Amino acid sequence: MGHQIAIFGASGYAGGELVRLVDSHPSMEVAYLGAHSRSGFELGEVHPHLPGGKRELGPLSPDRAQGMDLAFLALPHGASAHIAHELRAMGVPVVDLGSDFRMDTPERYQAAYGTEHPFPDQLPAWVYGLPEFFRKDIAGSATVAAPGCYPTAVSLALAPLAAAGLIDVVDIVVSAVSGVSGAGRGVKENLQFGAVDESVTAYGVGKHRHRPEMEQVLEAVGGSTASVTFTPHLVPMQRGLLASCHARTAADTATIAAALHEAYDDSTFVDVVDAPPSTRWVVGSNRCLIHASVDEETSRVVVVSVIDNLLKGAAGQAVQCGNLMLGLPEPAGLPLAGWMP
Amino acid sequence: MGHQIAIFGASGYAGGELVRLVDSHPSMEVAYLGAHSRSGFELGEVHPHLPGGKRELGPLSPDRAQGMDLAFLALPHGASAHIAHELRAMGVPVVDLGSDFRMDTPERYQAAYGTEHPFPDQLPAWVYGLPEFFRKDIAGSATVAAPGCYPTAVSLALAPLAAAGLIDVVDIVVSAVSGVSGAGRGVKENLQFGAVDESVTAYGVGKHRHRPEMEQVLEAVGGSTASVTFTPHLVPMQRGLLASCHARTAADTATIAAALHEAYDDSTFVDVVDAPPSTRWVVGSNRCLIHASVDEETSRVVVVSVIDNLLKGAAGQAVQCGNLMLGLPEPAGLPLAGWMP
Amino acid sequence: MGHQIAIFGASGYAGGELVRLVDSHPSMEVAYLGAHSRSGFELGEVHPHLPGGKRELGPLSPDRAQGMDLAFLALPHGASAHIAHELRAMGVPVVDLGSDFRMDTPERYQAAYGTEHPFPDQLPAWVYGLPEFFRKDIAGSATVAAPGCYPTAVSLALAPLAAAGLIDVVDIVVSAVSGVSGAGRGVKENLQFGAVDESVTAYGVGKHRHRPEMEQVLEAVGGSTASVTFTPHLVPMQRGLLASCHARTAADTATIAAALHEAYDDSTFVDVVDAPPSTRWVVGSNRCLIHASVDEETSRVVVVSVIDNLLKGAAGQAVQCGNLMLGLPEPAGLPLAGWMP
Amino acid sequence: MGHQIAIFGASGYAGGELVRLVDSHPSMEVAYLGAHSRSGFELGEVHPHLPGGKRELGPLSPDRAQGMDLAFLALPHGASAHIAHELRAMGVPVVDLGSDFRMDTPERYQAAYGTEHPFPDQLPAWVYGLPEFFRKDIAGSATVAAPGCYPTAVSLALAPLAAAGLIDVVDIVVSAVSGVSGAGRGVKENLQFGAVDESVTAYGVGKHRHRPEMEQVLEAVGGSTASVTFTPHLVPMQRGLLASCHARTAADTATIAAALHEAYDDSTFVDVVDAPPSTRWVVGSNRCLIHASVDEETSRVVVVSVIDNLLKGAAGQAVQCGNLMLGLPEPAGLPLAGWMP
Repeated sequence: MGHQIAIFGASGYAGGELVRLVDSHPSMEVAYLGAHSRSGFELGEVHPHLPGGKRELGPLSPDRAQGMDLAFLALPHGASAHIAHELRAMGVPVVDLGSDFRMDTPERYQAAYGTEHPFPDQLPAWVYGLPEFFRKDIAGSATVAAPGCYPTAVSLALAPLAAAGLIDVVDIVVSAVSGVSGAGRGVKENLQFGAVDESVTAYGVGKHRHRPEMEQVLEAVGGSTASVTFTPHLVPMQRGLLASCHARTAADTATIAAALHEAYDDSTFVDVVDAPPSTRWVVGSNRCLIHASVDEETSRVVVVSVIDNLLKGAAGQAVQCGNLMLGLPEPAGLPLAGWMP
Repeated sequence: MGHQIAIFGASGYAGGELVRLVDSHPSMEVAYLGAHSRSGFELGEVHPHLPGGKRELGPLSPDRAQGMDLAFLALPHGASAHIAHELRAMGVPVVDLGSDFRMDTPERYQAAYGTEHPFPDQLPAWVYGLPEFFRKDIAGSATVAAPGCYPTAVSLALAPLAAAGLIDVVDIVVSAVSGVSGAGRGVKENLQFGAVDESVTAYGVGKHRHRPEMEQVLEAVGGSTASVTFTPHLVPMQRGLLASCHARTAADTATIAAALHEAYDDSTFVDVVDAPPSTRWVVGSNRCLIHASVDEETSRVVVVSVIDNLLKGAAGQAVQCGNLMLGLPEPAGLPLAGWMP
Repeated sequence: MGHQIAIFGASGYAGGELVRLVDSHPSMEVAYLGAHSRSGFELGEVHPHLPGGKRELGPLSPDRAQGMDLAFLALPHGASAHIAHELRAMGVPVVDLGSDFRMDTPERYQAAYGTEHPFPDQLPAWVYGLPEFFRKDIAGSATVAAPGCYPTAVSLALAPLAAAGLIDVVDIVVSAVSGVSGAGRGVKENLQFGAVDESVTAYGVGKHRHRPEMEQVLEAVGGSTASVTFTPHLVPMQRGLLASCHARTAADTATIAAALHEAYDDSTFVDVVDAPPSTRWVVGSNRCLIHASVDEETSRVVVVSVIDNLLKGAAGQAVQCGNLMLGLPEPAGLPLAGWMP
Repeated sequence: MGHQIAIFGASGYAGGELVRLVDSHPSMEVAYLGAHSRSGFELGEVHPHLPGGKRELGPLSPDRAQGMDLAFLALPHGASAHIAHELRAMGVPVVDLGSDFRMDTPERYQAAYGTEHPFPDQLPAWVYGLPEFFRKDIAGSATVAAPGCYPTAVSLALAPLAAAGLIDVVDIVVSAVSGVSGAGRGVKENLQFGAVDESVTAYGVGKHRHRPEMEQVLEAVGGSTASVTFTPHLVPMQRGLLASCHARTAADTATIAAALHEAYDDSTFVDVVDAPPSTRWVVGSNRCLIHASVDEETSRVVVVSVIDNLLKGAAGQAVQCGNLMLGLPEPAGLPLAGWMP
């Protein structure tokens, strides 16, 4: 019998992917599904693409996870903190896919989100769930905050270069695009097909909440203050996220590539590639593909990375963390093959 | 070690799906990959979304499959016949995803394709690979012709009703839509994004080659001459196929539904549902969903069925047949969960 | 100075197209814009693609159209009746794009919509606004009900054949697909990008309200009771509508084509074409393209027609009617060129 | 009778838009249509969405334009030079939509395109066709090189700020996305629906040929050497282009906005807007919308601009130039309304 897993927030997009991954995981099984407004619905009513549709969604009550081996929280910003607090008190390890525990200090949290953190004392106990850089910390923790989708793509692209001192982390420009699922499953006018199809929009210009998260990672690995200008865009596709990261460098393309290969050649999910990748190459998988080239005229390196925002950018990365926390092989149950066409 | 599998035609869309399915199959493994114009390429050059990208594609030479347990042929119409002939002579069981061996008589083949069959004597040895109706024949055969994508959806929708005598098989109108992958991976002007995106086109009106195949199945199960008017359409999406089948009936909705439930309640991949399904509910899985309602004013039943044209309509169904031929559990290695969003 | 035009329901998709068409019309000008929930908004807030964005939307008050030359009503079902009633009393000619006055008898209205008509006595005064068949009646009327989008495509495809006695109107199967804008601009879960993109769904199977409207037209021109089985589908594109109409016939393709040419060779907007058309060929224009071929094996003719659901299927046709009512040239202000790519 | 217009390259996407615009222009009319491989075809065979489909396409022979008032060249890179040379000798004014004459010096041309210019002596005679900045030069010229699509969006976004000394033109990062029509109408594997739909790709990283063109404009207006890092992306939509331009600035948002308003408040086609615009707001029109905000933490301004790559980025801008050259009102025949949904 597999590890017993609770999923809170099972009715959203990330929640649906968690159910799909855990259902097919060799060492995990779904033991509880919790939802907010969809509590009382059958799984098949909210995720008609998933088998086992007769399973009922219950409420977002932490005590339903009593005695379970792990809980995933896939909830809106601000909704995780209290549930995570209770689960922790009950001794249930938690991977939070939300943003409540990603910041390392109450100050940074407040700067990013504009409110005080409800449990500032707990922040130090949370580990940032980016296994490629914080594998050991994750394996030893019972409280892991999975990164945001944009910070995942940007950190994987730039952190090895920051760590090696190859880029100037105080002068970074990131432009990124995301499929519409990144905006969640809420019913909103700006997410209607009529508004999104055949259109691109920049949003959160200069103030997206993922920016401080990127800076925090670059500072953690690079050791000096980072400053990122971040411009995200919504593009007309379901899934996929591409980050184009521009940084000052004195290095050439070969040196940059060597640093990336050094960082990732032993990793399962991150590959350095010779040409700019398409998002479709990773959609459906937990992979990240990275390509870098230095524009010697402008002394800037352009690092392009692609992920599936719902997998390596959310549910897949959460399961990757969960595997580490439960002592399972890191890649267990995580797809390497994408979906094309 | 799993059964050794050869895939001829590995560079196309169905071929890519075969590689993906066999790679993750608990009892099969890819032992040979053959391609026509892409012979000599690495897998990753033609399918950048698949792991194991360093594997090289070889030529379409049947002798490369010598001693293997099964060969899948995912080749253009007309390209399978000679390869299948040689594989059979070598004792290698074959599932042909193409149309060369689907027809039961040389006459019907000639009527459908306008040319004489190159091996008319072999046609009787081939079994039509629709497991839901011909499971035993498939299990006992070494030469199985997997159905076309449209005939799969239409046969699953109508065959139980034809078998039960609930519809008039001589008076059937089928309108169907398919995602663009159904047209294959060839580089064509009418498949460019600029031609396909945001547009729908009817094609093959009155003369699509899948029509006689549908009639053959309905005659096989229904026992009398069938006549189908078939209008397929290309719609702007990658995958998914929906067939709306209209047939005269004297029965009511409950009787029709009962016949469908009777046919499929024990099946793994076919489900009868209470509301018209969306293609997305099955894309990524090997499932078929069917909904029927009788319009009593016009005495016609409308049966709507949806499949993933590359899975239940091609590679998934081929693996389902292969499982039966190799004595494996019928659902082995086949996904039940779809991909949403 | 052009004719003074009031547009009620200016904030929806059809309303936006009316504003665009009237703004660029050589003999019309927008004199009033009314909206329901968006009353008080500026035009640019609801239609950022239109010039003159500072114009304010007012309430849905008929008296705002006092003295104007024509009013277009682009309102949800049921919302037109009272406004049209008042406008008529004020002497303002009306083109209603909604469904309130399309049916010729209270009985047919009730059968289609399930409720009693609020002004059954007025129905006889309304003319069905399909200019290709009822041109003179429209020109002489002050109350015109513009057809639904599906009935427009189906009527243009079949009415000449029904009138010529070439098809059996009691045995018709229509399968149609529409872009998402056909479902209106309401914010709904099933119209979110995540639900619609890369998916096709059949809906209203056996009970779509446009079916009786089709039968009414075929009966009006054909003289005998018509019976249509109608299956509409939603496809992932913004605009465009394709109807595949299947009817029993004893005629051959040439005879059918001759009847269609006879009907349309003098028309501005309807063309008979030699191959099945794509919806993109007409999106952006007020045109309808029709292709017919007889399947002699099944004695059925398949007539495929395509329109832009928001133009020939809504706002364009309404302006075409308005031109006739105001004594202007029928094609005035209506685009013949579509938008590609 | 309108000015007689020749269009060379009528079968491509920009060519089709030129035909559409000139056909509906109040003071121009199509007098000749030339094409390369499609010479001898009817217009309707290559542009089924356009009226007048019986017009025949002739060869790319300059002498066919003898005596005409203006010629538009919408040809691949390198194909314009000789034709333009001959037209000029014949006294026919030319607007070249291609890239052959955009650079101001042979050196810059060679740096951008890697080959020597065939007519280096002629370069000084060509005017860069960006009316918002070079209106008078265009009006007085018979040889105008219309800008590339990306340089149009970037120049409109940044040139007023460079001219006012508000940004550091040596430190600019531009990330841009374009609909697929920007890649032209050639039949290519990477432009198939199966490759493009639901995917984003960065391309030409660090070496796109539009980069030197942007630098040339910024230097022309700003007076000092410009350096741009430029990363373009292909996104799954037909039309629309968005440029996110990041530049160092000491100014605040209000100062930047004031400079943009100063530059454009009298222009017909460029508007400064208060929120980041969507590409759909301008698709179908000749407009450009610009939004700027300063990120004071990083001292960078992010200027986002959107255009329709085939209109303001190609055919529309060419007609705008042609209007100036022929002494017509600059906005004549150019659409202000976009297409939504």
